[in-house]
Amino acid sequence: MSRRFRHAALVGKYHAQGIRGVLDEIARFLIAQGLEVSLERETALNTGLADYGSMTPAELGQNCDIAIVVGGDGTMLGIARQLARFNIPLVGINQGRLGFITDVPIGQFAEALAPMIAGDFEEERRSMLEGGVWRDGDMIFEGLAMNDVVVSRGATASMVELKVDIGDEFVANIRADGLIVGSPTGSTAYALSAGGPILHPGIGGWVLVPIAPHDLSNRTIVLPDSREITIEIVAGRDASVNFDMQALASLLHGDRITVRRSAHQVRFLHPLGWSYYATLRRKLHWNAGVA
Amino acid sequence: MSRRFRHAALVGKYHAQGIRGVLDEIARFLIAQGLEVSLERETALNTGLADYGSMTPAELGQNCDIAIVVGGDGTMLGIARQLARFNIPLVGINQGRLGFITDVPIGQFAEALAPMIAGDFEEERRSMLEGGVWRDGDMIFEGLAMNDVVVSRGATASMVELKVDIGDEFVANIRADGLIVGSPTGSTAYALSAGGPILHPGIGGWVLVPIAPHDLSNRTIVLPDSREITIEIVAGRDASVNFDMQALASLLHGDRITVRRSAHQVRFLHPLGWSYYATLRRKLHWNAGVA
Amino acid sequence: MSRRFRHAALVGKYHAQGIRGVLDEIARFLIAQGLEVSLERETALNTGLADYGSMTPAELGQNCDIAIVVGGDGTMLGIARQLARFNIPLVGINQGRLGFITDVPIGQFAEALAPMIAGDFEEERRSMLEGGVWRDGDMIFEGLAMNDVVVSRGATASMVELKVDIGDEFVANIRADGLIVGSPTGSTAYALSAGGPILHPGIGGWVLVPIAPHDLSNRTIVLPDSREITIEIVAGRDASVNFDMQALASLLHGDRITVRRSAHQVRFLHPLGWSYYATLRRKLHWNAGVA
Amino acid sequence: MSRRFRHAALVGKYHAQGIRGVLDEIARFLIAQGLEVSLERETALNTGLADYGSMTPAELGQNCDIAIVVGGDGTMLGIARQLARFNIPLVGINQGRLGFITDVPIGQFAEALAPMIAGDFEEERRSMLEGGVWRDGDMIFEGLAMNDVVVSRGATASMVELKVDIGDEFVANIRADGLIVGSPTGSTAYALSAGGPILHPGIGGWVLVPIAPHDLSNRTIVLPDSREITIEIVAGRDASVNFDMQALASLLHGDRITVRRSAHQVRFLHPLGWSYYATLRRKLHWNAGVA
Repeated sequence: MSRRFRHAALVGKYHAQGIRGVLDEIARFLIAQGLEVSLERETALNTGLADYGSMTPAELGQNCDIAIVVGGDGTMLGIARQLARFNIPLVGINQGRLGFITDVPIGQFAEALAPMIAGDFEEERRSMLEGGVWRDGDMIFEGLAMNDVVVSRGATASMVELKVDIGDEFVANIRADGLIVGSPTGSTAYALSAGGPILHPGIGGWVLVPIAPHDLSNRTIVLPDSREITIEIVAGRDASVNFDMQALASLLHGDRITVRRSAHQVRFLHPLGWSYYATLRRKLHWNAGVA
Repeated sequence: MSRRFRHAALVGKYHAQGIRGVLDEIARFLIAQGLEVSLERETALNTGLADYGSMTPAELGQNCDIAIVVGGDGTMLGIARQLARFNIPLVGINQGRLGFITDVPIGQFAEALAPMIAGDFEEERRSMLEGGVWRDGDMIFEGLAMNDVVVSRGATASMVELKVDIGDEFVANIRADGLIVGSPTGSTAYALSAGGPILHPGIGGWVLVPIAPHDLSNRTIVLPDSREITIEIVAGRDASVNFDMQALASLLHGDRITVRRSAHQVRFLHPLGWSYYATLRRKLHWNAGVA
Repeated sequence: MSRRFRHAALVGKYHAQGIRGVLDEIARFLIAQGLEVSLERETALNTGLADYGSMTPAELGQNCDIAIVVGGDGTMLGIARQLARFNIPLVGINQGRLGFITDVPIGQFAEALAPMIAGDFEEERRSMLEGGVWRDGDMIFEGLAMNDVVVSRGATASMVELKVDIGDEFVANIRADGLIVGSPTGSTAYALSAGGPILHPGIGGWVLVPIAPHDLSNRTIVLPDSREITIEIVAGRDASVNFDMQALASLLHGDRITVRRSAHQVRFLHPLGWSYYATLRRKLHWNAGVA
Repeated sequence: MSRRFRHAALVGKYHAQGIRGVLDEIARFLIAQGLEVSLERETALNTGLADYGSMTPAELGQNCDIAIVVGGDGTMLGIARQLARFNIPLVGINQGRLGFITDVPIGQFAEALAPMIAGDFEEERRSMLEGGVWRDGDMIFEGLAMNDVVVSRGATASMVELKVDIGDEFVANIRADGLIVGSPTGSTAYALSAGGPILHPGIGGWVLVPIAPHDLSNRTIVLPDSREITIEIVAGRDASVNFDMQALASLLHGDRITVRRSAHQVRFLHPLGWSYYATLRRKLHWNAGVA
């Protein structure tokens, strides 16, 4: 039997109920399909699944040629970030309500995975944000994000004022609760709640979404991802920055957050017939009807 | 000469540049008009203006029948809250860009105040929010707000989940960055930035504005101000609440914030011909043109 | 058996499938409960249901003391407008997806109606908009609306410019696709799509929602319903106005639309335990979850 | 003296007040700079300026290597569309309030144009939309747009229902007042009023902005401009389509509007130091302050 892939990494949301049995079942299926299987170390430790070898994410990245991720979008984003520099494609299997990027229902994993292993799949690539925080000439924090980089006001501050540049061009001073730099992947997450548009993954850009901006005409801008964005803290106590969920708090005036397109992309595999727009329709309940 | 008022309280944004001279000039004008003048104590202390008697806000409330406030909307909101229970009308004189409620330009104070002292003015009343925070049956915080009561997520939390009831009716569970309960006065402040509507002061209601809500259909609701609103912290680390700028941080799951209409109203006096809508047009730059 | 009502009007969305059988069943149930039943004339004609007397809406208004309406919100709004001046309460029975105001599922009509007929129900009152169009001193159109009065640009015009006054106060000049004056009932209809807030029926006001306004700061205003609103066509070819669905097209520059609160209110009856907020949650899919 | 250009087309908003003198002055300046000058025929006819040769837009396109346009953004968009296939760069001189793309103030034309003629300028390229309307297999309308293609409901219809596809993928059924497909240039025009984001001209995409959509989660999507968009009229009386301001009304159910990226781009020249973001800040009054 022809196989496109040789060695699968298996990663699970290990505190989810019933996950051990599900992972065991998928591992045996993959082996029956002729693949070698290695569990991600934390997944193995926390589920007690010892029948398969376990590796750190970096080892998985060096040894595997496909990753099967069982969990929701959050689990997927976490491992995808860690595997990004190894260029391994990922497949998302979901135990609960399907996500934007974890779209194989657990009950159909065998029917879905078999043809994918044989090479029949849709592949899409997602860009990532990387950058850091600079203070007095030093980088004091470094981050990588699949969804977004978010600068927020302190909890008891009334707002944060941010100076935004792209390349060497000044964009705007923004006084707001915060500012989201979101990737196409992130455009359906927090940025959408804050009023941003949906950005198709084929768009080479970021959304720049102000959160509750003081100026009513401070609307979302879609910027090309070819130049570095710099966000300087101009005013506001105790601002913080998040690269996805990795946070740095207590930012000082003059601190600069830089954001650029990562050289790495994440590769997601979907069953044949997968549609980005069908996912949007399902997740956003379009045509579910209101009045 | 006929006077409507007898004793004026004079309050200033005392750290503003040039405020001492301005207050002195206004005080002398008021005295020339036949009024007794008392300075608010902090204003007197910080400006060094010792020629007039000084009183605490509570003493001003008991002794004066009009308050002249020199500063911006923030200064006015602060003193208006403190004087609210004494039912004294307030007039706002503004040194800089006119505010929503401080609408007499400093350069025209004499022409504006003279007829007002004689009894020719427009009076409007603004409702206020009051309430507190309850934990395990005890009220651990009490607050009064002219603008809004805001419940916010902690700085590094991704959201807060809030259960909202009005009277004994369940309204909704809201997962968001936060939730604003805004008065008509507050509807042109933070609530407007967060996407809420403008509420005319004659409306007996509050705006309930979710900030970056997770459910895209979680829109602003305008609620009657006749029943108490209860907001319970259901999930989310380190949420906080603000009554205007008075904050309580580190809220726990199960804490309840209650908000109801205060028995007191603030009375603002404006020169004859003042128009609420003209203020909106000016502050929001309507008809300034875009394209 | 004690009855609160004596004579029921029965009105149906007469072109709906299966409506004849449903109406017949309800009519027989009402008679069994001791009520007299009259069908609305068009309903009787179009369904061929001849076993019960039929009356025009005006006759129903003069003779009946309750109206049972089978259909969706559109059917209800239509007959409610016609019966408004007679002060008859209405109950909405829905064959399909429940509406905002037609909330008794057809399958439960007997269990729902029996206690209501006996006097156990929740009653709520909804305000209505009435007004007209004035040209050169003459009223050329008169209308009544439960949802909204909408002024719209002509189909091939780029915008309409409207001058809005309330009482004798100038509010704003608005350049937009159109302008919605919506009642609390209408606030969950078209006005919501155009970005307006939800207005609780207990609020004595209207939403004034600009549609795609040219000025980005032209936000929704919630206005007291105590004074007349006047909207003048200042610019824009071929504007039109709708009072609910009653339209007048080809408006001229200088035409004025007036809108005020009708002296009549609509009375809706709901089963005990009915909740306005539960209806919002259901219709707007709150808590259905997104990501 | 070194010149980059040889023959200038001169186009004016010919019904604007004082335009004749202004055009004459600019023409003489261009000749003094060593350029040949031809007036656009309608401009020459309507202003009576007969001292310079006049040509149709197509002749200008074939003979000139730069176009100087005196007017606002609307004048520029009109002539830019006509000259697009000739690849001539355009410079916008504005008599009134500066536009998004007409950014040389009339009072500074000589200082601005002299270096540009010598070759010192910023050039930016803007994509255009082209497409048509198909009925029963025939193209019944063909259009070109710099800003947007807009499908709108009929004036007295409550909505239009549209089926949107991109390439051979189904995107969504949208029930709304209408739908805007906007270019980056158009993203600061009508699409912005309807709630869309600002799209930097470097983004290879369109905004798809629903106007007052029935489904509250029907948000703007930014789509790649590499595939054709098809919009089919599914329901709604008397819908119409506009390519910029060229309209086709009375669309029928089943009519399909197709939109794709034009092979032509418009080239705008700006003085050195011109900044896209500075234009945004100026036009949208950012940092003008609200409260």
